[in-house]
Amino acid sequence: MSQTRIMLDESEIPTHWYNVVADMPNPPLPPLAPDGNPVTPEQMLAIFPGNLLEQEMSAERWIKIPEEVREIYKLWRPTPLMRAHRLEKMLGTPAKIFYKYEGVSPSGSHKTNTSVPQAYYNKQAGFSRLTTETGAGQWGSALSFAGQLFDIDVRIYMVKISYEQKPYRRSMMQTWGANVFPSPTDMTQAGRDALAKDPNNQGSLGLAISEAVEEAASRKDTNYALGSVLNHVLLHQTIIGQEAKKQLEKVGEYPDMVFAPCGGGSNFAGIAFPFLADKAAGKKVRLVGVEPTSCPSMTKGVYAYDYGDVSGYTPLMKMYTLGHNFMPPGIHAGGLRYHGESPLVSQLYHEKLIEAVAVPQVATFAAGVMFAKAEGIIPAPESCHGIRAVIDEALRCKESGEPKTLLFNLSGHGHFDMASYDRYLSGKLEDFDYPKALVDEALKDLPKVDWPPKAA
Amino acid sequence: MSQTRIMLDESEIPTHWYNVVADMPNPPLPPLAPDGNPVTPEQMLAIFPGNLLEQEMSAERWIKIPEEVREIYKLWRPTPLMRAHRLEKMLGTPAKIFYKYEGVSPSGSHKTNTSVPQAYYNKQAGFSRLTTETGAGQWGSALSFAGQLFDIDVRIYMVKISYEQKPYRRSMMQTWGANVFPSPTDMTQAGRDALAKDPNNQGSLGLAISEAVEEAASRKDTNYALGSVLNHVLLHQTIIGQEAKKQLEKVGEYPDMVFAPCGGGSNFAGIAFPFLADKAAGKKVRLVGVEPTSCPSMTKGVYAYDYGDVSGYTPLMKMYTLGHNFMPPGIHAGGLRYHGESPLVSQLYHEKLIEAVAVPQVATFAAGVMFAKAEGIIPAPESCHGIRAVIDEALRCKESGEPKTLLFNLSGHGHFDMASYDRYLSGKLEDFDYPKALVDEALKDLPKVDWPPKAA
Repeated sequence: MSQTRIMLDESEIPTHWYNVVADMPNPPLPPLAPDGNPVTPEQMLAIFPGNLLEQEMSAERWIKIPEEVREIYKLWRPTPLMRAHRLEKMLGTPAKIFYKYEGVSPSGSHKTNTSVPQAYYNKQAGFSRLTTETGAGQWGSALSFAGQLFDIDVRIYMVKISYEQKPYRRSMMQTWGANVFPSPTDMTQAGRDALAKDPNNQGSLGLAISEAVEEAASRKDTNYALGSVLNHVLLHQTIIGQEAKKQLEKVGEYPDMVFAPCGGGSNFAGIAFPFLADKAAGKKVRLVGVEPTSCPSMTKGVYAYDYGDVSGYTPLMKMYTLGHNFMPPGIHAGGLRYHGESPLVSQLYHEKLIEAVAVPQVATFAAGVMFAKAEGIIPAPESCHGIRAVIDEALRCKESGEPKTLLFNLSGHGHFDMASYDRYLSGKLEDFDYPKALVDEALKDLPKVDWPPKAA
Repeated sequence: MSQTRIMLDESEIPTHWYNVVADMPNPPLPPLAPDGNPVTPEQMLAIFPGNLLEQEMSAERWIKIPEEVREIYKLWRPTPLMRAHRLEKMLGTPAKIFYKYEGVSPSGSHKTNTSVPQAYYNKQAGFSRLTTETGAGQWGSALSFAGQLFDIDVRIYMVKISYEQKPYRRSMMQTWGANVFPSPTDMTQAGRDALAKDPNNQGSLGLAISEAVEEAASRKDTNYALGSVLNHVLLHQTIIGQEAKKQLEKVGEYPDMVFAPCGGGSNFAGIAFPFLADKAAGKKVRLVGVEPTSCPSMTKGVYAYDYGDVSGYTPLMKMYTLGHNFMPPGIHAGGLRYHGESPLVSQLYHEKLIEAVAVPQVATFAAGVMFAKAEGIIPAPESCHGIRAVIDEALRCKESGEPKTLLFNLSGHGHFDMASYDRYLSGKLEDFDYPKALVDEALKDLPKVDWPPKAA
């Protein structure tokens, strides 16, 4: 059997993050204030440190990773690249399936790749208090871990449905010293408004973001950290794809297609953007983001300026959106319950440089169980979306006889999602239809601005 | 900073298991039947396949690992060896601390190192149904995973207190297709007897073993698999220490002391036995097993022939024991709640080739949280015992100024133990005094046999 596990030495951890902006055919569209004017850096400084804002705006292709951050990356990086021999055999496919396994990080997902530099840069800029939101708990865990390393007080608004489904995620964050609150809370205006409208509000990423941003904006000593969506977050994740490329080279492979789940976009960007650089240079590779059919921002949303949160505290960003008021069904992949898609991923999708597919919930868990039986690792529900799409493609290869090379990002393990697996195994998990009426309703509230501004 | 993460290539997975019997000053004492005569292989064949029994009895120094097993090991091996730079700094110790991290396996602990060969050998011998017990759930998960790979029907008796504390361990085993029962059950005579005596019996490893052995012995198509204690189980774990030695060599180190938790002994044997070979050849290295003060078989037990289970279904083994009727307090390190110590570890301890210490529960969790804050990984409660002892030694080094090199086996992660961490963090965890009265009572029931037999 050819190699199963392709490793790199710690000296091969990338030295730079890759900034896809340098290879985009058009520059990214600017974030706007509600009046339609580009947001000023001063406005952003209310909740972000200057050093991270610089990265957010940068068009440099390569951005140096600080040595302090690389030292911490060594606790779990480089992550393994695995050839899924057993899954291939189980499927009877001629396709070669590789996966990059990010679940080896302390918090169990790729999110630590950005939580560590975000904590580092905030500390450098003199901040020692951070707020954030978390859905599935992966981002909250990652920031709790990173905050601890830099002696930062971390305060986490956790989407209520996840808080209830995943009590052990809360304990994990607390073990690293963080404070965790089920969102919506009565600690913020955004939370109180939501609870007044519906006392049983189960929360959403968009609403939790509002709460975290509100707290950060109201205190001078406090910044806000986001686990996805923004340019600098996607940037930090590009070490995944850089490592994967080097690992594939070691076994003489290059992918025909790259897959990753797509919620806020950082998972997908992490593995796919470094391949986009090759694509810009003329190489043939297909990059596929995978989203839930119940929250299909790219495949069913509109490309428009919208808020990143429910309450309209964030700048307007041009993105594929289902409307910032859209409340996604309570699927178990909490990390994909977001109304929008990151501006960079959205623009690349709009310009047809990347693709998107949507998959239903039950089929994603079926894929996850199949993967666990073949390869051992029990994947996070978010990761199961990518696996579903890869399995579907591998089965198409079986029909066509094409020996394609497929790569996907196994972004995290499912050790804190076993209650969801339990529901699947006992036949209690359901699919949600595309909630068209809810989306139509939410899209009515889209802000009426665009860039460049239309002539009056 | 010197190297943090020391990796090996998959080609460096050991090709042979190391059999410590070849280097013991005296041959292992034989297992006995209740009449005082050595157990015959025929008797053992009722629950074990011949190929594993051969390993159980072998005195060969090196036993070849089948290629099929090595292929599966590649899913997570070689495991990383890590230098705990941040923990050293936090402690302010001149000691160098290294840990071997076995939590990267699919089931999250070292137990897969033996579950895979056990499933393989049973399949080779024509068996496709296995029973076993599990305490913390680590062994049950490991066997569920391995059974799945070889299409074996796995039936697990899970100690009731763990079954209740860890519902997600059950879901994990079921994801890999196993059947899981809270022990004591009413499916076996051993279980029914225990429940008749105490309907609220919380179970113990010794009792769950009785149930699993009873089912295996009563069916021709079914064997029994054990996660620790027996010679062949300890043998399979020796890949841990072999890899660790090679990894330390790469950075020019050799340990002054090696630590691991000690319940049934496989964790300790896995990392320590390969160093015992060096010790036999004259090298100076101290090997320390760490047990809970509430279940201190080596530090407070007697060295005598005793049953491995509560009901007396197993052969008598010469071991450090608290009495097979001893019911350990409900500590959270379920994997260490066992009345005895493996015969090989016991004999080595008796011959003063290895050492043992006992540590109390609350201090082990304090060590686990400290480790998580320094190194990221949240350790299993069993692993916290080893960490406690290492931290204590590192603090002694701080006082004495000795720059010792310390190695320990981080046998698993605590992702399924967060409820225990929650109890610790909320101040609800308690210590148990050494249950002397219970032990004294249990030791009254020790069988009256020994080897060689006393002259009549």
